[in-house]
Amino acid sequence: MGPDPAVAGARSAVRASLADLAPGALVLVACSGGADSLALAGALSFVAARTGLRAGGVTVDHGLQRGSAERAEEVAGLLRGLGLDPVESVAVSVGRHGGPEAAAREARYAALNEAAERLGARVVLVGHTLDDQAETVLLRLARGSGARSLAGMARSGERYRRPFLGLTRAEVRRACLAMGLAPWDDPHNEDPAYARVRVRRTVLPLLERELGPGVAEALARTASQLREDADALDGWAVRALEKASDLEHSLDVRVLEELPQAVRSRVLRRAAVAAGSPAGTLAAVHVAAVDRLVTDWHGQRGVDLPGRVRAIRRYGKLHFGPAGVAGPGE
Amino acid sequence: MGPDPAVAGARSAVRASLADLAPGALVLVACSGGADSLALAGALSFVAARTGLRAGGVTVDHGLQRGSAERAEEVAGLLRGLGLDPVESVAVSVGRHGGPEAAAREARYAALNEAAERLGARVVLVGHTLDDQAETVLLRLARGSGARSLAGMARSGERYRRPFLGLTRAEVRRACLAMGLAPWDDPHNEDPAYARVRVRRTVLPLLERELGPGVAEALARTASQLREDADALDGWAVRALEKASDLEHSLDVRVLEELPQAVRSRVLRRAAVAAGSPAGTLAAVHVAAVDRLVTDWHGQRGVDLPGRVRAIRRYGKLHFGPAGVAGPGE
Repeated sequence: MGPDPAVAGARSAVRASLADLAPGALVLVACSGGADSLALAGALSFVAARTGLRAGGVTVDHGLQRGSAERAEEVAGLLRGLGLDPVESVAVSVGRHGGPEAAAREARYAALNEAAERLGARVVLVGHTLDDQAETVLLRLARGSGARSLAGMARSGERYRRPFLGLTRAEVRRACLAMGLAPWDDPHNEDPAYARVRVRRTVLPLLERELGPGVAEALARTASQLREDADALDGWAVRALEKASDLEHSLDVRVLEELPQAVRSRVLRRAAVAAGSPAGTLAAVHVAAVDRLVTDWHGQRGVDLPGRVRAIRRYGKLHFGPAGVAGPGE
Repeated sequence: MGPDPAVAGARSAVRASLADLAPGALVLVACSGGADSLALAGALSFVAARTGLRAGGVTVDHGLQRGSAERAEEVAGLLRGLGLDPVESVAVSVGRHGGPEAAAREARYAALNEAAERLGARVVLVGHTLDDQAETVLLRLARGSGARSLAGMARSGERYRRPFLGLTRAEVRRACLAMGLAPWDDPHNEDPAYARVRVRRTVLPLLERELGPGVAEALARTASQLREDADALDGWAVRALEKASDLEHSLDVRVLEELPQAVRSRVLRRAAVAAGSPAGTLAAVHVAAVDRLVTDWHGQRGVDLPGRVRAIRRYGKLHFGPAGVAGPGE
């Protein structure tokens, strides 16, 4: 008799996600002790033993709840029990920048990066599921973001991979239990103070009820298509920026004029960020104002951007420079 | 004292939307008698008188409710009262294909197209608002569509223009009332049997409550960015298809291989549709299977597509032809 189908699904997702790695490479699993990352640890342990990969684990103690250190030690013990080696429990201190969820995420990834480098890991696996992806898309959609952020989380990046992005949370939980692993349910995951929890508990169920089942799958499919779109458009923008730039990093307006709007916006955004405008505060309205120097030119004086960067047009060239400094040719 | 700000906003939106038309051109407004299209008729009448455009109106009697013919005559009377000329009330018979909303829409646009051609109209204005756009995006998102359909409704197409796509339904209703026009509230717009009504009455209010205000605006902004993305990618796909095609309409695999995934999918979809596969039933899974003939080639036998079209790879070329017929070279 083969394994439970959910277990087989989890293992095969992990196997596919690691297929490009050479034997002996170290793969770490980031494990909170929740059902998703515990199932991931269990599947990794199974796959690594059969493919010659080395498997380790890291659990992060965010220090935000009473008893979190003991909790982290228990998770580390579970990981060792699965045969993972090395296993580390890393304590971090969570700041406040950007709200509690963002601050905890930042501290967690900093600790995972540090551990991955110190241990020489090739890849870090994280346990996000299809449901997490759908929640991410809905949260970002509510803020009116473009294709790049609606594209959600990447299945596979430089260091982090998400083998379970195609599996539902219910499937992964079933796999966890069928592996005989006892998950820990973080009370934060039920606290409606978090927008993500409200999306999970209230918004997605209502969407399923009013618009028909399969909304989470639809959102995840959308994310993956939009990710491909964003990759293609970003690649185009990189080439177009190179083509439009001269040695002084000014952009040729004639080259910009011929680009489709979606590409020109991306080129202008990249040029502004390269000149020092912070990507996080440079908004679509700023880029649109710079765009009008190209597409609706009537002798405007220039456009001030966040980070004291100023865009001006002169003699058929667009210059990005420090605000208050005259551009070339003046 | 100037006009009510909502009236000024509606007029300026209509004026901007018609700025490219030469005096004497005929503009028709499609008017149901609801607040949105009635405000549109009022604004068009004002703008046309000041810009030398001719303004007419069409109201469609769908024949779906008791008294709909009288209702349509009343709307036509209102339009004539606004000084529009010509004004027509057109009766249509609504089929059943694709459900009641789709069938009514199809009959309505067929009647509007016919009237526009017969009367020699350059443009037809329709009254969709930012809220309609947000509802459209949510409805399509729940089906997991790509960028093109998430891009929602176009602000300006070949024939139809939507001047109010940047205004909220509340703003437009205010404009309608401030113009002294009495809108007719279609009971269908409150019938929860329609998914769009459920989105309007239940889903969007919940999203605003749980994720913060401004969700409708965010969805509309997203739609407009994704429309630009889709335009750019479609343009790229058209050029790539041309470059990859030989005289027998086969595609060069080496050209296809070098395209980003987002563009290659669009090229393959276009080629399949050109070979006779119906766009409406050709799904992403079909296109993905054809894609594997390019990116994961191991001598597959070919891929059957809807409409009895078959894609095969032979000697470095991809051929789309009738299923059951041997491809060239066999």
